[in-house]
Amino acid sequence: MEQDAEPSSPMNRRELFTLIGRVAGTAAMYQAMSSLAFAAESTFDPRFGLQGAPRGASVLILGAGLAGMVAAYELRKAGYKVQILEYNNRSGGRNWSLYGGDVYTELGGFTQHVGFDKGLYLNPGPWRIPHHHRGILHYAALVGATLQPFIQINYAAYLHSTRAFGGKPQRYRSIKADYEGHVAELLAKTVQQSRLDQSVTKEDQEILLESLRGFGALDENFRYGKSLEASSRRGFDHPPGGGLDARPTPSDPVGLSDILKSQLWRALAQSNEHEEQQTLFQPVGGMGMIGRKFGELLKEVIRYDAKVTRIDQNESGVTVSFVDAKKGGAPQTAQADWCVCTIPASILSQIPISVSAPMQAAINAIPYAASCKVGLQMKRRFWEQDEDIYGGITYTDQANAMIAYPATDYFSSGKGVLLGAYTFGRPGEEFTALAPEDRVKLAVELGANIHPQYRTEFDTGASVAWHRVPWTLGCFGGWTEERRAQHYDNLCQIDGRIVMAGEHVSMIPAWQEGAVLSSINAITRLHQRIMQG
Amino acid sequence: MEQDAEPSSPMNRRELFTLIGRVAGTAAMYQAMSSLAFAAESTFDPRFGLQGAPRGASVLILGAGLAGMVAAYELRKAGYKVQILEYNNRSGGRNWSLYGGDVYTELGGFTQHVGFDKGLYLNPGPWRIPHHHRGILHYAALVGATLQPFIQINYAAYLHSTRAFGGKPQRYRSIKADYEGHVAELLAKTVQQSRLDQSVTKEDQEILLESLRGFGALDENFRYGKSLEASSRRGFDHPPGGGLDARPTPSDPVGLSDILKSQLWRALAQSNEHEEQQTLFQPVGGMGMIGRKFGELLKEVIRYDAKVTRIDQNESGVTVSFVDAKKGGAPQTAQADWCVCTIPASILSQIPISVSAPMQAAINAIPYAASCKVGLQMKRRFWEQDEDIYGGITYTDQANAMIAYPATDYFSSGKGVLLGAYTFGRPGEEFTALAPEDRVKLAVELGANIHPQYRTEFDTGASVAWHRVPWTLGCFGGWTEERRAQHYDNLCQIDGRIVMAGEHVSMIPAWQEGAVLSSINAITRLHQRIMQG
Repeated sequence: MEQDAEPSSPMNRRELFTLIGRVAGTAAMYQAMSSLAFAAESTFDPRFGLQGAPRGASVLILGAGLAGMVAAYELRKAGYKVQILEYNNRSGGRNWSLYGGDVYTELGGFTQHVGFDKGLYLNPGPWRIPHHHRGILHYAALVGATLQPFIQINYAAYLHSTRAFGGKPQRYRSIKADYEGHVAELLAKTVQQSRLDQSVTKEDQEILLESLRGFGALDENFRYGKSLEASSRRGFDHPPGGGLDARPTPSDPVGLSDILKSQLWRALAQSNEHEEQQTLFQPVGGMGMIGRKFGELLKEVIRYDAKVTRIDQNESGVTVSFVDAKKGGAPQTAQADWCVCTIPASILSQIPISVSAPMQAAINAIPYAASCKVGLQMKRRFWEQDEDIYGGITYTDQANAMIAYPATDYFSSGKGVLLGAYTFGRPGEEFTALAPEDRVKLAVELGANIHPQYRTEFDTGASVAWHRVPWTLGCFGGWTEERRAQHYDNLCQIDGRIVMAGEHVSMIPAWQEGAVLSSINAITRLHQRIMQG
Repeated sequence: MEQDAEPSSPMNRRELFTLIGRVAGTAAMYQAMSSLAFAAESTFDPRFGLQGAPRGASVLILGAGLAGMVAAYELRKAGYKVQILEYNNRSGGRNWSLYGGDVYTELGGFTQHVGFDKGLYLNPGPWRIPHHHRGILHYAALVGATLQPFIQINYAAYLHSTRAFGGKPQRYRSIKADYEGHVAELLAKTVQQSRLDQSVTKEDQEILLESLRGFGALDENFRYGKSLEASSRRGFDHPPGGGLDARPTPSDPVGLSDILKSQLWRALAQSNEHEEQQTLFQPVGGMGMIGRKFGELLKEVIRYDAKVTRIDQNESGVTVSFVDAKKGGAPQTAQADWCVCTIPASILSQIPISVSAPMQAAINAIPYAASCKVGLQMKRRFWEQDEDIYGGITYTDQANAMIAYPATDYFSSGKGVLLGAYTFGRPGEEFTALAPEDRVKLAVELGANIHPQYRTEFDTGASVAWHRVPWTLGCFGGWTEERRAQHYDNLCQIDGRIVMAGEHVSMIPAWQEGAVLSSINAITRLHQRIMQG
């Protein structure tokens, strides 16, 4: 937590709470109590702010992504002269949405003219914001982005394997119910037959049994089977209705062995992971709205189309050479007292930079993950109209990995853009090797195995393969534990007059919160260093 | 399903699908395939419609709730002359929102002047619509209500018991993680020590073990303990951050015995129930928007303030006596060939009605559930600002049963209305016995045990105790299995010229879908009866 670095007088907790309560009111007091004594949800403190920059002190910021813009905003507010150099002709970096009319050229020269209808978009990078990512939520509000719920868990979405159930997708609700039902039944049997671990007291065993009945929708004999209770979890053959002929008929659960062999349970825990726990949000109009609005706020200090070619520093300051990314021409230079560098390490490792050997080694050590997203515009929202799927994610063992349904414009009779593929790691490599139009084609082909409607409803597509994105050459800093142990702290150090920020300089890689928190941490330390003289 | 009652020529499934595909396109074909061969999500068919009413035939409908308005809309469309008599001076029935400025008087004479700010509301009755409730979703769209997501599962909301953890609320995420972690570890131990049920093959045991690791966030030795994996489910002591001092520190799980004895696991399965499975919706502006807009659509045929006092029928028609609910005066009568009666059985059992003995017995047999909701306006949205809770539900063993957070106006700096109590059954009786202002007072007092901010932030409240609502005397038809077996089919019959509809005439009691589907079933059969002459 960045405050740890600030000097503080010794004070016990009660005194501290009282002081905070007096100064900042009950909200701040509650926050302080939470973050110190109770479950800490985030290290971000909304009261964050720097003050009192030395007169005339300047900071050059490389990159107008979230880390760079947070640094620029906060340092400017503290009184620094700031300037941002940005390679692209837009702000946001990986905070980015592709809209109809956009033109995007990836490494290798493939150019896509995005053909989505007005209002529809693909978020090639981040697409959801967890409720506990207070940093990015704070800046989203600050720049005026409106947030709406992102649907992570949808019991009506599918789990799909080409090798299970004859390739037929299964509803999330039924796999979840059957897996948990069988697990509960197995453990209940063990308890009932006194085969449970000795360490559980008789009293606890009774409570455990009772809890398993509720957890697994077990019947009075602690069996999981064809029953209305189980069907109220997994779905009915004939759901309850009204009037005559309304009685529900239960469905047949899938047997334990088939559930296990299907491997579909693999996706069940996904939404229990900290970053994917409901409630989540997304900006209305696309994730890129945050970066766009942030850029408008900072428009006086961002220089676009500036491709950094060299970063020099000496005792008195930092000099950065850059060329116009569009027009080329002779190198220009920008100078400042200090530098916050948010250029992804994948790019930065190719730019001459005067830093210490440990810092250079750290920059060179971070592998960047390949990842690909494909957006598919469909002529109608068949997933809603035919299949009762509103938002959420279908997981598949095919190379497209998932299909995500738009968490916006529900019940619209118009078109919609599906996330038709979001690949990472192994099976996804099929995608990254392809040209954009073939990635779209493959996503359609694979998706049609789950939604046959693709064959008639597909309209147009767009895709971003991150290792071919000219300004990142990869999706995010894919640290291994070993490399992090060796290099991470070195990467975080203020190296002379340069400090690094970005998701790769955080313990929350690939998430916008990592970029925001790394930036706050970096500029807090930088400001302290400067103030110490 | 209502279609079963329609005559159909014998046709095999493939022929049927082909025919449907040719006539109605792929959407209809997919729906037909789904509902016949695959997981049936709903018995509602969006293509529903009646046609060809006999010239001059008329239907009198009692009640302008959802069942009554669906009947009126569809019968009018089919060519019937329809009229609705409604006791209240508004449409919607239990589809109802209370706004600032509303005045509501309950039985016993207590009058509340609702003081909520503009745009804020309490839904005293239904407040969420499951994604598979196709009937109510269909009519919500038809009347022009805009829907937005309702948040059911929120991992940041609390589970609370006065008798566990010293009365301190626990985050949903931590109880869920710890309960599932311990269950997974217990079963994994059983597998590893060959104490599992004989019926599971060795091969399946291996897969089971692997699955339990993911399910329970177990470590490499299949233990659930203090680890980053477990903390990424239950929350960290120090969550991951950016830059230096960003490394996460894991939190201590609660032991099995404490988790079991806490009884907090009781609430974990709630969101797995069919009606509460994500995705869910709510109308923008309050649930009552559906009833209001539906009423506007039918304004020519609804007579408000009509208190039915007697229902007579003979060979040639139905005569209903009513008095003006506001002005009183002499009884008036309305007549029609047929009658759809949606008056709740709790009220109808007190009205003279000429029906058969079995129907009268059915009407008298349905017990109505007492239930109470309390809306509490707070001066600021502290659950969001202090505690990262956006929508969702906190469950407690106190009499208020739950606190639900508004799934609208997220991040607003203004006021917000919490659902401060939603009681049913036993502990809730404390509320139903109180006067409205004391119900609000109790909800504030109990809620402050979970959110101490209540003490400074509470602004104004309103409450509805359903057994005191003059036009329902209860919340919904709380059928027991025995009573349903004896009376339900009788209640559904067309009794001479009268047919019943409403949630109490459905297998989905208390849900709006029950009202809609019962109405469709009733008018479908009524129309058939009429067409048969």
